[in-house]
Amino acid sequence: MGFHPAYRRAALDPDYAYARAHLQPLFLDALRAHALDLEMSGTPHAGQALAALRTLRDYSPGDVDPAVPDLFFTLDREIARLSPEGAGALRTALSRNDLDMTVYRLSARAELMKAMHAVLALRTTLLALAGRERDTVITAFTHHQPAQPTTLGHYLAAVENAVARDSARLEGALGRVNRSPLGAVALAGSSHPLNREETATLLGFDGPVENTLDAVAAGDWQVEIAGALSTCAATLSRVVYDLLDWAARGLITLQGGLVQGSSVMPQKRNPVTLEHARTRLSRTLGAAQTLVYAAHNIPFGDVNDVGTDMQEPLWTLWHTFGQALELLDASLDGLDVNRAAWRAQADASESTLTELADVLARRTGDFREAHRIARALLDAVHAQGRALHHATDADLRALAPALEIPDGLVAAALDTAAFVARRTTLGGPAPAPMAEYLGMAQARLEADRATLAARHAQFAAARDTLWAQE
Amino acid sequence: MGFHPAYRRAALDPDYAYARAHLQPLFLDALRAHALDLEMSGTPHAGQALAALRTLRDYSPGDVDPAVPDLFFTLDREIARLSPEGAGALRTALSRNDLDMTVYRLSARAELMKAMHAVLALRTTLLALAGRERDTVITAFTHHQPAQPTTLGHYLAAVENAVARDSARLEGALGRVNRSPLGAVALAGSSHPLNREETATLLGFDGPVENTLDAVAAGDWQVEIAGALSTCAATLSRVVYDLLDWAARGLITLQGGLVQGSSVMPQKRNPVTLEHARTRLSRTLGAAQTLVYAAHNIPFGDVNDVGTDMQEPLWTLWHTFGQALELLDASLDGLDVNRAAWRAQADASESTLTELADVLARRTGDFREAHRIARALLDAVHAQGRALHHATDADLRALAPALEIPDGLVAAALDTAAFVARRTTLGGPAPAPMAEYLGMAQARLEADRATLAARHAQFAAARDTLWAQE
Amino acid sequence: MGFHPAYRRAALDPDYAYARAHLQPLFLDALRAHALDLEMSGTPHAGQALAALRTLRDYSPGDVDPAVPDLFFTLDREIARLSPEGAGALRTALSRNDLDMTVYRLSARAELMKAMHAVLALRTTLLALAGRERDTVITAFTHHQPAQPTTLGHYLAAVENAVARDSARLEGALGRVNRSPLGAVALAGSSHPLNREETATLLGFDGPVENTLDAVAAGDWQVEIAGALSTCAATLSRVVYDLLDWAARGLITLQGGLVQGSSVMPQKRNPVTLEHARTRLSRTLGAAQTLVYAAHNIPFGDVNDVGTDMQEPLWTLWHTFGQALELLDASLDGLDVNRAAWRAQADASESTLTELADVLARRTGDFREAHRIARALLDAVHAQGRALHHATDADLRALAPALEIPDGLVAAALDTAAFVARRTTLGGPAPAPMAEYLGMAQARLEADRATLAARHAQFAAARDTLWAQE
Amino acid sequence: MGFHPAYRRAALDPDYAYARAHLQPLFLDALRAHALDLEMSGTPHAGQALAALRTLRDYSPGDVDPAVPDLFFTLDREIARLSPEGAGALRTALSRNDLDMTVYRLSARAELMKAMHAVLALRTTLLALAGRERDTVITAFTHHQPAQPTTLGHYLAAVENAVARDSARLEGALGRVNRSPLGAVALAGSSHPLNREETATLLGFDGPVENTLDAVAAGDWQVEIAGALSTCAATLSRVVYDLLDWAARGLITLQGGLVQGSSVMPQKRNPVTLEHARTRLSRTLGAAQTLVYAAHNIPFGDVNDVGTDMQEPLWTLWHTFGQALELLDASLDGLDVNRAAWRAQADASESTLTELADVLARRTGDFREAHRIARALLDAVHAQGRALHHATDADLRALAPALEIPDGLVAAALDTAAFVARRTTLGGPAPAPMAEYLGMAQARLEADRATLAARHAQFAAARDTLWAQE
Repeated sequence: MGFHPAYRRAALDPDYAYARAHLQPLFLDALRAHALDLEMSGTPHAGQALAALRTLRDYSPGDVDPAVPDLFFTLDREIARLSPEGAGALRTALSRNDLDMTVYRLSARAELMKAMHAVLALRTTLLALAGRERDTVITAFTHHQPAQPTTLGHYLAAVENAVARDSARLEGALGRVNRSPLGAVALAGSSHPLNREETATLLGFDGPVENTLDAVAAGDWQVEIAGALSTCAATLSRVVYDLLDWAARGLITLQGGLVQGSSVMPQKRNPVTLEHARTRLSRTLGAAQTLVYAAHNIPFGDVNDVGTDMQEPLWTLWHTFGQALELLDASLDGLDVNRAAWRAQADASESTLTELADVLARRTGDFREAHRIARALLDAVHAQGRALHHATDADLRALAPALEIPDGLVAAALDTAAFVARRTTLGGPAPAPMAEYLGMAQARLEADRATLAARHAQFAAARDTLWAQE
Repeated sequence: MGFHPAYRRAALDPDYAYARAHLQPLFLDALRAHALDLEMSGTPHAGQALAALRTLRDYSPGDVDPAVPDLFFTLDREIARLSPEGAGALRTALSRNDLDMTVYRLSARAELMKAMHAVLALRTTLLALAGRERDTVITAFTHHQPAQPTTLGHYLAAVENAVARDSARLEGALGRVNRSPLGAVALAGSSHPLNREETATLLGFDGPVENTLDAVAAGDWQVEIAGALSTCAATLSRVVYDLLDWAARGLITLQGGLVQGSSVMPQKRNPVTLEHARTRLSRTLGAAQTLVYAAHNIPFGDVNDVGTDMQEPLWTLWHTFGQALELLDASLDGLDVNRAAWRAQADASESTLTELADVLARRTGDFREAHRIARALLDAVHAQGRALHHATDADLRALAPALEIPDGLVAAALDTAAFVARRTTLGGPAPAPMAEYLGMAQARLEADRATLAARHAQFAAARDTLWAQE
Repeated sequence: MGFHPAYRRAALDPDYAYARAHLQPLFLDALRAHALDLEMSGTPHAGQALAALRTLRDYSPGDVDPAVPDLFFTLDREIARLSPEGAGALRTALSRNDLDMTVYRLSARAELMKAMHAVLALRTTLLALAGRERDTVITAFTHHQPAQPTTLGHYLAAVENAVARDSARLEGALGRVNRSPLGAVALAGSSHPLNREETATLLGFDGPVENTLDAVAAGDWQVEIAGALSTCAATLSRVVYDLLDWAARGLITLQGGLVQGSSVMPQKRNPVTLEHARTRLSRTLGAAQTLVYAAHNIPFGDVNDVGTDMQEPLWTLWHTFGQALELLDASLDGLDVNRAAWRAQADASESTLTELADVLARRTGDFREAHRIARALLDAVHAQGRALHHATDADLRALAPALEIPDGLVAAALDTAAFVARRTTLGGPAPAPMAEYLGMAQARLEADRATLAARHAQFAAARDTLWAQE
Repeated sequence: MGFHPAYRRAALDPDYAYARAHLQPLFLDALRAHALDLEMSGTPHAGQALAALRTLRDYSPGDVDPAVPDLFFTLDREIARLSPEGAGALRTALSRNDLDMTVYRLSARAELMKAMHAVLALRTTLLALAGRERDTVITAFTHHQPAQPTTLGHYLAAVENAVARDSARLEGALGRVNRSPLGAVALAGSSHPLNREETATLLGFDGPVENTLDAVAAGDWQVEIAGALSTCAATLSRVVYDLLDWAARGLITLQGGLVQGSSVMPQKRNPVTLEHARTRLSRTLGAAQTLVYAAHNIPFGDVNDVGTDMQEPLWTLWHTFGQALELLDASLDGLDVNRAAWRAQADASESTLTELADVLARRTGDFREAHRIARALLDAVHAQGRALHHATDADLRALAPALEIPDGLVAAALDTAAFVARRTTLGGPAPAPMAEYLGMAQARLEADRATLAARHAQFAAARDTLWAQE
């Protein structure tokens, strides 16, 4: 009997289309590893299965047979056409349960590698820009008010430092994704001799999932991915917040190819690339929730919820996250920084007052009192309609005659560039700690890049071996 | 001027109450580390600050002064009462920004340790129960239908294997939480000499956050925690699903102190402890979302969103997760397993048919054909109104005369205990792989316990040193 | 200058593809209404714009011109090819801001109508099945334990009652979606005379959005849709929970075209259609979150977040929800109900004990005491290894000699069918209240169907008028 | 036997504490309605139950008896102390299932009324401020770039228009919350005669839930509330975005009692009240997700997930939302608007260029060409280092000699106040449409206030009647 049209339309057909577009080579890889294992254990006709799989490697399966529910049975049918005995042998100690989960992990592994590359690319851009803008003084805001001068390089380095933690989280996730379910069969393994260590190695996995029921049931690696991408997306949404704010204030300008005009307002040059990045990040967070909902309050066993039916949502998650990073990276790469506007903002922001308080505190040993005097100075010059950076030593002496203010103290304390130059604390914006940070960060980036390259090599070598053997 | 009543009622007062109930000792720890650093750098009056902090260690700050916005300024006022010079010195190169973030990380570290302990406790219970029930044959379901026999021990081991990954995720999170923001001051560090490495060590941190702006801005460690607890909660919600299903079928029974009667239905013994565990897991997932929303589309800088205002939601997250684990652990510990009912279900479930197909496939080398014959046998006995476990060799011979079925093949193939005994694949339910798994898992558990104990020792030793010095 | 490849690849191209596949006729409708308004206000060349739009109605715009960012400018270019003056006129007092928002609301309106139809279809199926199964006694569970007998019809009617509230919620949302942004232009309207009431009517809207800035900024209608579909999805996820539980227990069986076999387990007939429905509901909840995240912490003004960039996520939401309802409806329609199995479960469940307590309470006026006696009877027969439905009057008399139990009381009280027949409370499962409910529900369904038909007529008539005029 | 400590600590105790603090009067109301119904149906001893309930009305139940699981059984025990017969009678045809759900809906109704009041209060503040600032010209941004002049009043009116839809959504939710579950007993009603219409009226409900199983199972009203509050919170998060941006630019200033200084930066006056409002809105969105998760993939029947265990999360939702509105309302009420700064920003923003294009289009009938000329003028003056508002008729004539530009055209077109005055489109910022809008909005607000007052009267009258009868 045929499948119900609703079942075809709302489940089988889209799942088949997805599997064919995205997963077919991975199915062949996994079947190949299984067939090699069967051959090693002396299963009759396993060699015919191996030959059929090689033939099918460039196969495009054409239209779905309405009697066949999915890609697995389509491949099964094609193998049977090439070799009925091979097809029969290949089904030994194999289930769609362990096969599907193997394929889904191979797919997630590949997408995770892409995401890790995108994060590394972003860190590369951030570090380069941080180096370029290490002397660009900006006003950092806290609580939406001007706070203190720092440099744009310091800000970008902070972002890179945060994103480096995303690399570490993704690396942790990769280790947990990269375990082989193959050989779990339906859930309990088989009475047929299977070498799960061997098939795991053939597929580039770090080893088998240690328990066969866990192998077909586990969905935590998907929820972990959702969490790791959400964490990164949340951080980047904050960076986009700042970049759009700076673009709105004319402090930065996107490359011409990244802005959009208006159909009605002739003056408009909208930094929509950043806006699109923001929406992709929001969409990443929603897509992540889909994964969590799917894994919630279902049996711990083989179910579609964390298997077949999560492949398309996972793809949306990876794809959307990738778009966000691409848009953000493009926005940063080649960013025009309007240093004069930053400097004007810094001067107007009265944000060096902390330094004046610090200087006074060093004279008195009492920061609380120094804070009070600094505030009084600000109020005094405001009362006279002047801005802080026009305050003088005389102004200060009038407020704190006992302190014996030396000449030039006020101007030196209130200078924004000098403010930054004095912030020599470890991790601060002054040249020395910034140089130290950039060196550390560059080394860390290269180490992470090497780790990722080693992973690529591991997976490529396994695949070569997988198909080299006859 | 006083604070607006709305601001007091909806922000300042609850935040103060929270800080006083949960964070005060951590504030004193962080201030102590800062004061020691000031003393080492020769800041005048730092010794008076140290003495005042020691006095305040057992201090209960009483009612809030309406003129004082928060716990920091309350402590500042009290220190000033004890030593005005010490209070003035202590404010040197210190901001609520870095101080708060230091305290929040110390708090998160402590809560994370508790969560890791709870996860270890659950794994301990799971492993003990898995060992106890390693021979209890159950029917595992896939897609909500009886699939294959396995053992309850195998199921519980699968869960333990999954939860062990949660331990690893939480350990990763701990490493990223346990970095010190102290010395970042407002965001740019200070012109005062600060030894951030030293204060980090004094507080048991693994080191300083590498960039001072990141130190006060970062909220990714909170979002990571949300993700890690969500991942664990999602997995456990699936286990609760199965446990409640088994309780509903009479296959397991909770201890008497964990069930609830009905006000209207005299026969009821409701396994509500598991239901409460489920809701706590759902609430964990919602609480986690609060953290993500808070960190979304805000500036990357010092803001309340990932600071003060996330302390109460974080507490809800930790607390709810802790309740869930406590309820689940209590439900599993001392669980009554109705082995007879499991066996009856297994016999009725016709779930050993795979093994018959496997056996036939070994005779023919063609699993596809064997699968077809096994299905035909099932249909044949059903057509005669019999259950599968009453099928005979004769039934099978009638369907597949060419196969020369030896006597006893059918009964042997359909026996559930024998089915399990033959599942000797790595990670499967047969005695040998189960023994291997339990040994590995026990060793892994002990290693994780040792790691956690080492962390405890690290933090305790730091605190001893912190307050031992004068 | 051309657009940056990242901007094309990750934003412009997918948005263009989406708009072309889903929105083009709606763009032409909205432009037509604007052109008619321009003509009415005497704008020169408006007639040429009208003629060009008619020509374009069957237009397929071919490949994107890399110099053109979106569908609007593509249409603009094509209109200009047909009539430069018409194109110039059409741009009068028009912005992509109000045009896009108009199109997005027209699109949401159409999708909302589809969702409302799907909900009505499900209610129709539920009511029909409730009528068919009004005498099928089942055991209702509370807290995952057998509670009381009721009928399957009563359960299905409860679900229909809940889903009827979803219809009401969606109708409320429709009223808020169906307002016209047209004439808001960029955000402030225009100095050109525009008749917003007229263009609203031409497009079948209930009226203009009352404030022009709100017209281009508002995204609350999207978040409301997300909430309304989430509410429905959550309820239905609970129904799927029960259906899968019943399928797992053999109490119901899906049609053959809706189940799936196993590649390895010959006995399997998996009710995966319900499982797929569950995942679509989970995906609906995640898709809904995407809409909320997108609208969170962004400016209240014209931004892509609640405009262009939410079109694809909205489509995923509608589409996934539609799949879920289709799968659930198909599962219910033609459901096999195994009445004998239900009855056996009911007899074994001891769930009529409440009625015995009720009967005793009517004799004594004290339900608390009656509850105690009923429980004692259960314990007594269990102690003798008997099931409750074999309890006798003698058993009861032994426990409560003072009550003068008449002959036949126990059997009558414990009969499941009789239990149901006595539940004559308004809204209960006895025949009379069920008949009353079904009549009310049928009338309500027909009223909702009439409301929806009137909406269809309103929109169709507007569109006819829109294109009838020359 | 006593309850397990874990069950007490993680479920029973917090639930009891919550019920006692928040729900006890509602329990007594619901029991009173039930007792009155019992008395009307002639149940013996119902009068004694009524008397006991009156006595208990001011009762404070003291410490929990460890043998008693919850508030219901505590009250039951106290009633039994006052009148054993009354307690026995009161339990007739009553279950915690229907009683709890009745209480939870009464509680939600009261909280919903508070939320609706808070929304009305915010609309009142918004409308008053919109009226006050109807002539304050501001620059509206689109896509984070200056777009067009409008007025602050127009912006605030747009927000009020959006929030008015929240009032409508909450009113819809109230109608669905305000139905009575009482009389559903466990789930199937009773064999005892109950008058559900009557008890519904006694409790101020609009009528009974139409199906008794739905009455104890439904949680959709909670998910709807979560959705409605999320929708409002998302809109308000956008308003807070703008307000914080304006505060950061010095365009608005919060009242002194709403800002916070810095411990380290003497110049700081942080608008943290708005920041706290933002976090409360984010927390509202997370709290809303808790409700959705709890209702996901659970049975459709009486379970704790949508009952007892959702009371505390619901309270968090209401409470957090209330805090957000209180903080936002306080921020808006008494807001200082720096009109000079707005005007300076408007002049510098070159945002009137649309009007110049409009004016040219009216001369040429071709907006596309007019748009091109306006852009060329902007580029020309920029090339000469001038700002747009210094452009002259001569500049324009040089670019478009054919247009015969009359004297004064450019200055008139570029004036921001004139730009606004010409935006007379329905819903636009010009005086006439604004006056029309404010009149409509005031009338709508008063109508909504009257609706809410009628609801209050309905509930108060019911309660008076409930306790007046003897």
